[in-house]
Amino acid sequence: MTTGYHVAVVGATGAVGTQMIKLLEEATFEIKQISFLSSARSAGKKLSFRGEEVTIKEATPESFAGVDIALFSAGGSVSKQLAPEAVKHGAIVIDNTSAYRMDENVPLVVPEVNEKALFEHHGIIANPNCSTIQMVAALEPIRAAFGLKRVIVSTYQAVSGSGVSAIRELETQSQAILNKEAFTPEILPVKGDKEHYQIAFNALPQIDVFTENDYTYEEMKMTNETKKIMEDDSIAVSATCVRLPVVSGHSESVYIEVDADDLTAKDLQDKLRNAPGVVLEDDPSTQLYPQAANAVGKKEVFVGRIRKDLDQANGFHLWIVSDNLLKGAAWNSIQIAESLIRLAII
Amino acid sequence: MTTGYHVAVVGATGAVGTQMIKLLEEATFEIKQISFLSSARSAGKKLSFRGEEVTIKEATPESFAGVDIALFSAGGSVSKQLAPEAVKHGAIVIDNTSAYRMDENVPLVVPEVNEKALFEHHGIIANPNCSTIQMVAALEPIRAAFGLKRVIVSTYQAVSGSGVSAIRELETQSQAILNKEAFTPEILPVKGDKEHYQIAFNALPQIDVFTENDYTYEEMKMTNETKKIMEDDSIAVSATCVRLPVVSGHSESVYIEVDADDLTAKDLQDKLRNAPGVVLEDDPSTQLYPQAANAVGKKEVFVGRIRKDLDQANGFHLWIVSDNLLKGAAWNSIQIAESLIRLAII
Repeated sequence: MTTGYHVAVVGATGAVGTQMIKLLEEATFEIKQISFLSSARSAGKKLSFRGEEVTIKEATPESFAGVDIALFSAGGSVSKQLAPEAVKHGAIVIDNTSAYRMDENVPLVVPEVNEKALFEHHGIIANPNCSTIQMVAALEPIRAAFGLKRVIVSTYQAVSGSGVSAIRELETQSQAILNKEAFTPEILPVKGDKEHYQIAFNALPQIDVFTENDYTYEEMKMTNETKKIMEDDSIAVSATCVRLPVVSGHSESVYIEVDADDLTAKDLQDKLRNAPGVVLEDDPSTQLYPQAANAVGKKEVFVGRIRKDLDQANGFHLWIVSDNLLKGAAWNSIQIAESLIRLAII
Repeated sequence: MTTGYHVAVVGATGAVGTQMIKLLEEATFEIKQISFLSSARSAGKKLSFRGEEVTIKEATPESFAGVDIALFSAGGSVSKQLAPEAVKHGAIVIDNTSAYRMDENVPLVVPEVNEKALFEHHGIIANPNCSTIQMVAALEPIRAAFGLKRVIVSTYQAVSGSGVSAIRELETQSQAILNKEAFTPEILPVKGDKEHYQIAFNALPQIDVFTENDYTYEEMKMTNETKKIMEDDSIAVSATCVRLPVVSGHSESVYIEVDADDLTAKDLQDKLRNAPGVVLEDDPSTQLYPQAANAVGKKEVFVGRIRKDLDQANGFHLWIVSDNLLKGAAWNSIQIAESLIRLAII
């Protein structure tokens, strides 16, 4: 019997950190102590947790003394610097950045898909990219039943994946355009990149910077992370990732080829209807399909518009939607913590 | 030598009609007389044409006496009722609705692709669906050079495709959400359908009503019209059509398979660089790619993000953007009129 866990949230004031704190307030495991950590800039501010005020402290190596579970969501450079320090102090790190996702020694986990990979951890566990998580959570029941050979995905991603400043940019820019006032894009499509473009009432086919093969890092994350999580390098995955004027809720138009030629859309629907973490919303007769605006604040992955390709016997199209800050980030991290405890890994 | 043409615009006050009138003001052919026609509701209003006031008249069979070219964009039912009457009066009809597109006796024309089909007309020529036009205009140079076996397209479509009332709904709903005020969706996703949903800061995977196979009519238009325009029923086309909070400018994430395994993205770029009506905007090093907001008011189809599929040797991904009211509707109709005149069909 444990008397509870000391949990630290690194990046407590960010878009994802804020959601992590909300979810920890309702966590099913016992929390004996909570630490909110951040950059020096936010240190000293106070946040509420279960009705009590908690002062944010600057994240340093020493911050992790006595911490059991450290949830990192403060950018890749912070994770690279401090996650190993947290592990040295005996914590298990659940890292929401891309810093360790493709590291051979780091499990990359979506509990509905590959929870057992947690047994292989060496202190750090990586939370996958938001757009990957919702896709693999929806495709896993299909893969397990019918095999999965190929994925072509076009995403419709919300700005909250780029943080609080991107949400503010969308809102102020939308208002400026409605007022017919001038504005200067400063954040999107990618905070650190050279050019910035209008996001309000527009669609930007760039998320993260470009790689050498002219795909973006976001697109390559979907390819590489899907193979790692599903533990099958033979699955072909190509992505086109697009940022939209949506605050929260990623949508994905996904084409898949399964390993059987004789299936119907109903066969896929039947596999998804009771799948863990998945909600089937698929009824053209009542115009029922997943919508980003409806998914906000919910933990599940919503799937609809399932239909057989018009030509390819093993091809199907799906529309997959989830709250990118919850299942795509904070909730998947909390789920990993819950799995670690349930499986007695911690 | 002609002394000019009598041109009629049916649906003169609509989103597309308004653009047709602007384009006719700069038309390269001589216009000896212009008639603006509409429903009884708008009749009597005045519109400006080349500096002169023109009174809108109610469209009736007799309205077409003496008309040489009748541009219809007032909905399918108006076209079904009045286009044959216009033809009886000797006019050539260029119809921007879906009423006649799949009619065997009606050419469906994108001049850059199948201008010669105009010779087969029997009075009515159909203008394809907006999302189809920009896609086939961009893919035709590739098809002609390398063959085209397959298309999987996910669209990012603007609300102006649903008319002036949909634009107004997006604007008022966006303002309500920014103000944190309540609102009631009344138009989108489809004016005549049962349910209406939030479009502002959302993405709706329904354009037009659903067909029996659970694809929407918009999706089936892309499939059927592409085959007809490219005159090749063997091209496999499956579409997912999505409405976005964008005023004008449709974007498309398009995956294609060509008839050759040894091509590079550069081979496709080279074919598109000087293609008629196409502008290549494709340079990841400078974050150059097509954007809906940049395409508004322009007649061309913009193509970028061209890259080879990561697994399929004959597979490529493209991002195709155009102003849905111009090349997607009004400009393609005017181009058809120009072609008819240049080819001496009229």
